[in-house]
Amino acid sequence: MKTTKKILLPESEMPRQWYNIIADMPIKPLPMLHPATKEPLKPEEMEGLFAKELVEQEFSTERYIDIPEEVRTLFKIYRPSPLVRASGLEKALDTPAKIYFKNESVSPVGSHKLNSAIPQAYFNKIQGVKHITTETGAGQWGSAMSIACRHFGLDLQVFMVKISYEQKPYRKFVMNTYGADVVSSPSTLTQAGRALLAENPNTNGSLGAAISEAVEMAMTKPDTKYTLGSVLNHVILHQSIIGLEAERQMEMADDYPDIVIGCFGGGSNFCGISFPFLRHNLNSGKKTRFIAAEPASCPKLTRGRFEYDFGDQIGMTPLIPMFTLGHDFQPASIHAGGLRYHGAGAIVSELQREGLIEAMDIHQSETFRAGILFAQAEGIIPAPESTHAIAATIREALKAKEEGVEKVILFNLSGHGLIDMASYDKFLLGELSDFSVPDEDIAASIAKLDKLIK
Amino acid sequence: MKTTKKILLPESEMPRQWYNIIADMPIKPLPMLHPATKEPLKPEEMEGLFAKELVEQEFSTERYIDIPEEVRTLFKIYRPSPLVRASGLEKALDTPAKIYFKNESVSPVGSHKLNSAIPQAYFNKIQGVKHITTETGAGQWGSAMSIACRHFGLDLQVFMVKISYEQKPYRKFVMNTYGADVVSSPSTLTQAGRALLAENPNTNGSLGAAISEAVEMAMTKPDTKYTLGSVLNHVILHQSIIGLEAERQMEMADDYPDIVIGCFGGGSNFCGISFPFLRHNLNSGKKTRFIAAEPASCPKLTRGRFEYDFGDQIGMTPLIPMFTLGHDFQPASIHAGGLRYHGAGAIVSELQREGLIEAMDIHQSETFRAGILFAQAEGIIPAPESTHAIAATIREALKAKEEGVEKVILFNLSGHGLIDMASYDKFLLGELSDFSVPDEDIAASIAKLDKLIK
Repeated sequence: MKTTKKILLPESEMPRQWYNIIADMPIKPLPMLHPATKEPLKPEEMEGLFAKELVEQEFSTERYIDIPEEVRTLFKIYRPSPLVRASGLEKALDTPAKIYFKNESVSPVGSHKLNSAIPQAYFNKIQGVKHITTETGAGQWGSAMSIACRHFGLDLQVFMVKISYEQKPYRKFVMNTYGADVVSSPSTLTQAGRALLAENPNTNGSLGAAISEAVEMAMTKPDTKYTLGSVLNHVILHQSIIGLEAERQMEMADDYPDIVIGCFGGGSNFCGISFPFLRHNLNSGKKTRFIAAEPASCPKLTRGRFEYDFGDQIGMTPLIPMFTLGHDFQPASIHAGGLRYHGAGAIVSELQREGLIEAMDIHQSETFRAGILFAQAEGIIPAPESTHAIAATIREALKAKEEGVEKVILFNLSGHGLIDMASYDKFLLGELSDFSVPDEDIAASIAKLDKLIK
Repeated sequence: MKTTKKILLPESEMPRQWYNIIADMPIKPLPMLHPATKEPLKPEEMEGLFAKELVEQEFSTERYIDIPEEVRTLFKIYRPSPLVRASGLEKALDTPAKIYFKNESVSPVGSHKLNSAIPQAYFNKIQGVKHITTETGAGQWGSAMSIACRHFGLDLQVFMVKISYEQKPYRKFVMNTYGADVVSSPSTLTQAGRALLAENPNTNGSLGAAISEAVEMAMTKPDTKYTLGSVLNHVILHQSIIGLEAERQMEMADDYPDIVIGCFGGGSNFCGISFPFLRHNLNSGKKTRFIAAEPASCPKLTRGRFEYDFGDQIGMTPLIPMFTLGHDFQPASIHAGGLRYHGAGAIVSELQREGLIEAMDIHQSETFRAGILFAQAEGIIPAPESTHAIAATIREALKAKEEGVEKVILFNLSGHGLIDMASYDKFLLGELSDFSVPDEDIAASIAKLDKLIK
């Protein structure tokens, strides 16, 4: 078939099952540990916090898990999402590489987060839960849960990381429009929040702290469960729909990726686009490279340690076997709020240990340049998070040009930046900090981008 | 075919020609008049201001006009746009009406305006123009021209209505990201702007004033042309792609609309979705109703007079035969900035005179309630402009329910509201003014909506 700009799957071909990579991993991830006993966590110990079916998914070793029909119906608001040939970017880079991106920005909240928010709200609903708590960094996950909870008639309390609450007021308004309650975290609603505020009244907040608050409220309030937008196995499972669709769309385009790239916070969009392709590395000898693009100021995969660590700042969650910067790590206030998390999920950490995936860390000033070049070439202004994937893609496409090889690169456009325009404004005014001095290589990358931006 | 949630046209079936309704009008619109001589305007008199091919389109009586291949290629970034069955809204209203919407919010700037920005930039480019001026109300048209001008390597100066410049900073940042210069209008860059500021330093600005400024700069600066995002015949022509696609998509859904609805500023999105269907009223005896939904605070079609009037505030443009509130009308500072224009285009005014279309005026407080109900039912937060079309749709769907008849309603979702979230915040805080007291009927509509919003 002749490749069009957008490669569209009909609704009827939307996947009916999620893919669980654990079934295909040669070495399984280590178990989570109970925070008090340090014994392997049992499913029933998670059920106080999470809906029962989500806990089953968390521990499942089944290769494929059915997507409920009610969830699929809601997905049709925006799924299947388009696979797009980035012909404008290819031209701007003058590269022999063929660049595709999966456009997850088409969801009503502008990101991939709805892929897990809908099933999480659904499984809570059918169990009779009334109230949901969650945290949000950039606000993408909170917005997604707001829609999903509204649809299923659940109340939602969102703890929004303070720096994002201040930098991204529009995100709060979006959540309010869908009927959610949003507070700045650390808040005075929880013991955890009050303790953190007492310790440092001027804190920027962090995802780790917001998680502590949301978990505490879920554990202490009746008919209440907690939801998380990344890191955990069941979230990664839900996000596999991205890669499963992309796989069929690449077939339609008669191509297969040499490199798959996603930005990396806790793993949800990177794993979502990667794992269905990584399956073929594991099972059929494919040699695709998988690159997790993370911020230089929060480099858990490139510079963190692999160890058991808490998922939250206070230490209320189970211990997770993860690449981590330490659960009390305070990331700089970069605009990619969704990537300001100290650790990586258990599955992706295990894959990184075994060298089955790669990681790349990128400075903020390079990512915004990449974002502007992409916007000018493809029309879409990317989310600050997604600009990390774009910057990594540009690096690889320019390398392909230097080497004169035709690579097929697929990246995930996890979201658009229209609700984060204040960050672009700051960048254009020269007011964005890089938090650390770029080394020579990075300075060279930045100089290349400056030449390409018109 | 079984109706899916989204009805998608493949890129290969995107229209190859625009539809010009003038060819089918039983009574043609009156000619525009030269502002000095009051004689019918000649094409060559417009060529100082507009690209030659756009002037040809402005005066054309051909039924179909080819879309250049380079324009179609760029359209593929977001077109064909989906036709969506509003099953969530139908359920929320418990109506027997079948509601469809054409989702123009999927464009990278979030509105239908790119449909005319791309061809306008293209025709200027091939003529060798270097600089473009334009005005923008809500910022949707300015954002669209920014992308289009960046693509074709044209400089762009945007005059943004002062009230929107202040209410919608993110729109300005979007334009800056694509490389456009944006000033608040009235500005000190033009004689017109300086005169208006001298007269009233605290003016909110208006589209009419911003047009005066953009026209003046285009007439006085070398290699510079002006572009307009609504009102004129060639803009309406470009927007016909909305209705042409919708027509094929309704066929795919095996339906045909009894009512077509669009919000109304100068006419671009209303005419775009309506005229290809109105063609079948004119030619094949169809009886579809067409409803232009305009703000109660700027009601040119429902309460204006049909007369020759200027398109701008100062009186620099040709005289247009239009329904108008007077070219010096100062609309209230409603958030639907794109609808704050004093007049309607010549074609649509003529159709209104003959009773071939209808108009409905709606208060701001009803539109925001409609917007929130839609967001909660369909997931998408609509632009303040588009909420007018949604409010009219809801009125008609509830009427169908009262009458127990199954109507097919099609409306145009001209854009999403993610860049206008500050207005939703104000509404939710109870800080939005209605500018006039709603009468009993309107109060009843509002009360109905309040019951439906969860």
